[in-house]
Amino acid sequence: MTPTFKITKKDIKSKGRVGVLSTPHGDIETPIFIPVGTNGTVKSVSPRDLKEMGAQVILSNTYHLHLRPGEDLIKKFGGLSKWMSWGGPTMTDSGGFQVFSLGVGLEHGVGKLLREEEGEAKPRLNKITKEGVTFQSHLDGSKQYLSPEISIEIQEKIGSDLIVAFDDLESPKYNHKETEQSLELTEDWLIRSKNAHKRKDQLLYGVTHGGNFKDLRIKSAEFVDKHFNAIALGGAHKNKENMHEIVEWTIDNISENKPRHMLGIGEVDDIFELIERGIDTFDCVIPTRIGRTGYFFVSPKTGNISNRFRMDINKPQFRTDQKPLDKNCSCYTCNNFTRAYLFHLFRNRELLAYSLISTHNVHFLVNLTKLIRQSILEDKFGTFKKKWLV
Amino acid sequence: MTPTFKITKKDIKSKGRVGVLSTPHGDIETPIFIPVGTNGTVKSVSPRDLKEMGAQVILSNTYHLHLRPGEDLIKKFGGLSKWMSWGGPTMTDSGGFQVFSLGVGLEHGVGKLLREEEGEAKPRLNKITKEGVTFQSHLDGSKQYLSPEISIEIQEKIGSDLIVAFDDLESPKYNHKETEQSLELTEDWLIRSKNAHKRKDQLLYGVTHGGNFKDLRIKSAEFVDKHFNAIALGGAHKNKENMHEIVEWTIDNISENKPRHMLGIGEVDDIFELIERGIDTFDCVIPTRIGRTGYFFVSPKTGNISNRFRMDINKPQFRTDQKPLDKNCSCYTCNNFTRAYLFHLFRNRELLAYSLISTHNVHFLVNLTKLIRQSILEDKFGTFKKKWLV
Repeated sequence: MTPTFKITKKDIKSKGRVGVLSTPHGDIETPIFIPVGTNGTVKSVSPRDLKEMGAQVILSNTYHLHLRPGEDLIKKFGGLSKWMSWGGPTMTDSGGFQVFSLGVGLEHGVGKLLREEEGEAKPRLNKITKEGVTFQSHLDGSKQYLSPEISIEIQEKIGSDLIVAFDDLESPKYNHKETEQSLELTEDWLIRSKNAHKRKDQLLYGVTHGGNFKDLRIKSAEFVDKHFNAIALGGAHKNKENMHEIVEWTIDNISENKPRHMLGIGEVDDIFELIERGIDTFDCVIPTRIGRTGYFFVSPKTGNISNRFRMDINKPQFRTDQKPLDKNCSCYTCNNFTRAYLFHLFRNRELLAYSLISTHNVHFLVNLTKLIRQSILEDKFGTFKKKWLV
Repeated sequence: MTPTFKITKKDIKSKGRVGVLSTPHGDIETPIFIPVGTNGTVKSVSPRDLKEMGAQVILSNTYHLHLRPGEDLIKKFGGLSKWMSWGGPTMTDSGGFQVFSLGVGLEHGVGKLLREEEGEAKPRLNKITKEGVTFQSHLDGSKQYLSPEISIEIQEKIGSDLIVAFDDLESPKYNHKETEQSLELTEDWLIRSKNAHKRKDQLLYGVTHGGNFKDLRIKSAEFVDKHFNAIALGGAHKNKENMHEIVEWTIDNISENKPRHMLGIGEVDDIFELIERGIDTFDCVIPTRIGRTGYFFVSPKTGNISNRFRMDINKPQFRTDQKPLDKNCSCYTCNNFTRAYLFHLFRNRELLAYSLISTHNVHFLVNLTKLIRQSILEDKFGTFKKKWLV
């Protein structure tokens, strides 16, 4: 089957909407947070735990899977979903972000978000031509090559339901002219990606770019909307406010009935702001990445914008705390373990610690998007958002 | 309630028996393998997974829990079983083995088993008097003190169902006289442990010693049998054959109706040999320790004595292997994941790898003892043993 998207309810006061993205591996109810399983595993969380918490789709990284274990092996094992014993819908990115990280990202010492403290500038490990990108593997330094055609071929073999066209990620430090040049290259690569894509059972997302320049963002939105049935919002931004503007410029210039994915975003406040502006799905490594260091998500009022809805289990105050991580949470961890026990596991560097806190954190974001979905259905999104982002 | 033990079936040809050890936290069907959760967690395996695989009792280390988080905290949280969210029966050791490891174990460069290659001799980190043992914490070097009374007090606060009297572990390098002196100290400490023990809802195991000297082993067995309602077999031995002899000398000189625990043993062939000689329970870190390095248990004929029923997932042959770890295993890992996927997880050092293989390994031993129990009930133990140890 060809994936389809249907909006079932619109928010009364915002651009938020509830919908169903149907794929060969099952339906995805939107809006939804998509956990990231870079190497075909959501770090330290089992597929069973993901199912139980209501995760509906997992995003893996094309670049990583291409290097290890290779797309041919995954194809031989029946595709990504089966290979990793997930069974449900999957998404892959294009590899563009990793290529960026090895290139101008290194050179400018930045991520796609301009950091307050600049990172150290380092020589780039990639070389971009109009044809594609040559770069060094982060695993063994071997020479690798990606192009739109190759990225799509890899993703077709990986067999994910939702795939992303190959793009050139601009640096947030680019000026207007540099950003425009990058966008031109992206547009060329998007079309080549589209032409290379043959599998009808995959939904191909075009990616919007344009840095923080409104005219370029609008141009990019119109271009992607013209050529693609699904829109991924990518590219660089300066800060949160700028990201919100960018989303607005983009959403206002694409068709309403196409699914919209925001790449690599997943802070609690962002989730509210992005759903309000019409985003359907987003992926982010945050819940597992912070979980491995001991940070866990908490809901209001304990959690709020100033503590970024997170606390650190390693603080001495938790040594004798009999409460669960979050009193409003119904995940396996919160149903069974105290903060004091998790504090103990972390102090002893017990592997179970990483697994239990990561499970809580992923559950927290997946469940938050489920609650938001519910609030839109009940025309209570505005109130619900206020309760969280006071 | 006071824990009780009842033999329900004896093997027709050996000293093997099936029984039920009833504790305040539930019944334990013997023979059974007891997974070790040193710090109050079976490394990288969740309590839920332990329940699902049929684990019936978990052993934690008194020494480790005393240092972190401390017995008072565990008591405040309702005791070990509740604190770690296990809910079922628990056992603790006395701390004697850790004290040994920091003392003559270091000095002689040995474990309780004489290694083929001798370890490096190092200065001891403890000091033994008739009263008790002063030693350095392995965590922070702080000065610590254990005595029979203190070990029992700690275990009473920890609240495990099965507890072990404090003993002096002899070096396998001791001569007869040194072993006899150690045994005398042990006997004194055992009686002091017994006198210190007040909780009626815990079963206190006396520990037999005597190195590899038959006369001392018999003397120790008679002594422990006279004073205790449960027997733990401890002490040093030279090798497997010697261990089997020691078990025979001991079992022949203790009452039949008391539960017998073998401390720290858990190789597949040992499990058969020990059950055959009348052991009811044993604990060992093997399944999780080898699991974290990639070794997984396999049943016959793939598994056999010469490969110690284990294979290494890191071998290149597993890169494309679509089979489960063990074709006869019904654990979560074997039901859902291929060797190729686990090979991939290990190569990427993904945390899920350690959890999935440890889960398999613990399940494997717990299930093996369940199958042995069944074989005794059906008068087929001899045949079953031959099938495994050909």
